[in-house]
Amino acid sequence: MGSLSNGDVLGQEFTDHVVRAMGPETTPRMRTVMTALIQHVHDFAREVNLTTEEWLAGVAMLNWAGQMSNDKRNEGQLVCDVIGLESLVDDITYREASKADKPPTSSAILGPFWRADAPIRENGTTITFNTPKDAVVAYMHGQVTSAETGKPLANATVDVWQASTNGLYEQQDDDQIDCNLRGKFVTDAEGRYSFYCLRPTPYPIPFDGPAGKLLKLMDRHEYRPAHIHLIVESEGHRSLTTQIFDKDSKYLEDDSVFAVKDGLTVEFKPRKGDTQAEWDLEYNVTLAKKQ
Amino acid sequence: MGSLSNGDVLGQEFTDHVVRAMGPETTPRMRTVMTALIQHVHDFAREVNLTTEEWLAGVAMLNWAGQMSNDKRNEGQLVCDVIGLESLVDDITYREASKADKPPTSSAILGPFWRADAPIRENGTTITFNTPKDAVVAYMHGQVTSAETGKPLANATVDVWQASTNGLYEQQDDDQIDCNLRGKFVTDAEGRYSFYCLRPTPYPIPFDGPAGKLLKLMDRHEYRPAHIHLIVESEGHRSLTTQIFDKDSKYLEDDSVFAVKDGLTVEFKPRKGDTQAEWDLEYNVTLAKKQ
Repeated sequence: MGSLSNGDVLGQEFTDHVVRAMGPETTPRMRTVMTALIQHVHDFAREVNLTTEEWLAGVAMLNWAGQMSNDKRNEGQLVCDVIGLESLVDDITYREASKADKPPTSSAILGPFWRADAPIRENGTTITFNTPKDAVVAYMHGQVTSAETGKPLANATVDVWQASTNGLYEQQDDDQIDCNLRGKFVTDAEGRYSFYCLRPTPYPIPFDGPAGKLLKLMDRHEYRPAHIHLIVESEGHRSLTTQIFDKDSKYLEDDSVFAVKDGLTVEFKPRKGDTQAEWDLEYNVTLAKKQ
Repeated sequence: MGSLSNGDVLGQEFTDHVVRAMGPETTPRMRTVMTALIQHVHDFAREVNLTTEEWLAGVAMLNWAGQMSNDKRNEGQLVCDVIGLESLVDDITYREASKADKPPTSSAILGPFWRADAPIRENGTTITFNTPKDAVVAYMHGQVTSAETGKPLANATVDVWQASTNGLYEQQDDDQIDCNLRGKFVTDAEGRYSFYCLRPTPYPIPFDGPAGKLLKLMDRHEYRPAHIHLIVESEGHRSLTTQIFDKDSKYLEDDSVFAVKDGLTVEFKPRKGDTQAEWDLEYNVTLAKKQ
């Protein structure tokens, strides 16, 4: 089929034509991905009788997302997040490890605020340097072990980051010093790490762009439950990207980016005899071996 | 369901959760569109086991599209075009009119180079002011009639635009004067319009952005068959956006944006006794009544 009959509805024949246009040098993976993408995009348009006006509104939103994005903000990612796509692909990617006999700690989405250049800090020190008046400090500590052997993993890296009580990460906020509420900790011989941080608080995702507009159109709020981000890495093991959620937080049931899993809620307990922290959080991580 | 079990694959239950998050103030149309969009996006990711890395590569391409877009270029639109989406939604949008007893002229996609502010020109004049050496001039003329009555439509507007032989529209090319190869013509009492233009030539779509990258990844070429864009409007009638294709052109079978339909190919015939034009193109348009 080269051209389409006058007046015919563009159905499966048209979709097949677009798929078949891929040349012989397309990689097998690209062919698989694009075949499914073209099919689903076409089926979506046909199912809802998508009009040119509606499609152009969608294009304008996607262009707007790109125009808002820079090295501190990824609005395209955020648009995907509010329809659950990042959580879904995170789950798909992590599925192999989850199938292991002794499942490692659950994963969760990276989010747009991780920085590659966070400083290494000493265990027992703090990541909060601009503690706001409404903040409550917690002491977080735990052990990193192997999912296979149960043994502690020394020299593992625990990369942690969290928002302040105003809902902003340090790179979004001129009132926080560089790398406030962010740092990397290296586990000791017993696989242990520890640091002072804030007991996290719920906050809204950026609401001034297309992700916010989409939430408004879907009559949804923009809040995320209180959480701390972690990436845990140890040589020879699969690195773990996750978020842990305060089990007493609001929005656990309706996280605006759908990242909450049962295995990731944690309990803050009152901490006694430490003038530096009101709350104590023990959080142990198990890592799967690299395959 | 609030949170998801540790280790479970995010299946239909997760998708239903994302869909159900829409609040009561969501409009019925928005709910229909977003329900289908979320379902298809999730099904796509699950079907191909989309990884985080692959998804982030897709996000980067969409952000890049937005960053390349401005008032002269719509790269998000172009990305949709190369997977046939604009042709499909154009067809869906026009379907109502096509269902009429006496079908009007077929539609085709607007494309990214139309301008709202094209000048009105006199019938019988030209739209080519910077005619290149390799160009061949044609005289295009025809009649606009009603699909219902067959009668001529006076005062209809024929808005026409085309690329030069270098493949560039005037707004892409500093060597063309403003509104070269572009103009609006108003039909006379007999519904007739006429002007001199170029016999169109195939050209590549912009290949320096994500649409070009996607074409490369799909091992496809970037060419469009020779065509002229038209929007025809008449009071009380549905406006027609279309493209007409030279039936002798290359790429009719494999238009990079899938806009060719049989009803839209036209025949240029040798023109005799006119020193201004080598070719003659008669093109008549019928318009459907507004419903």
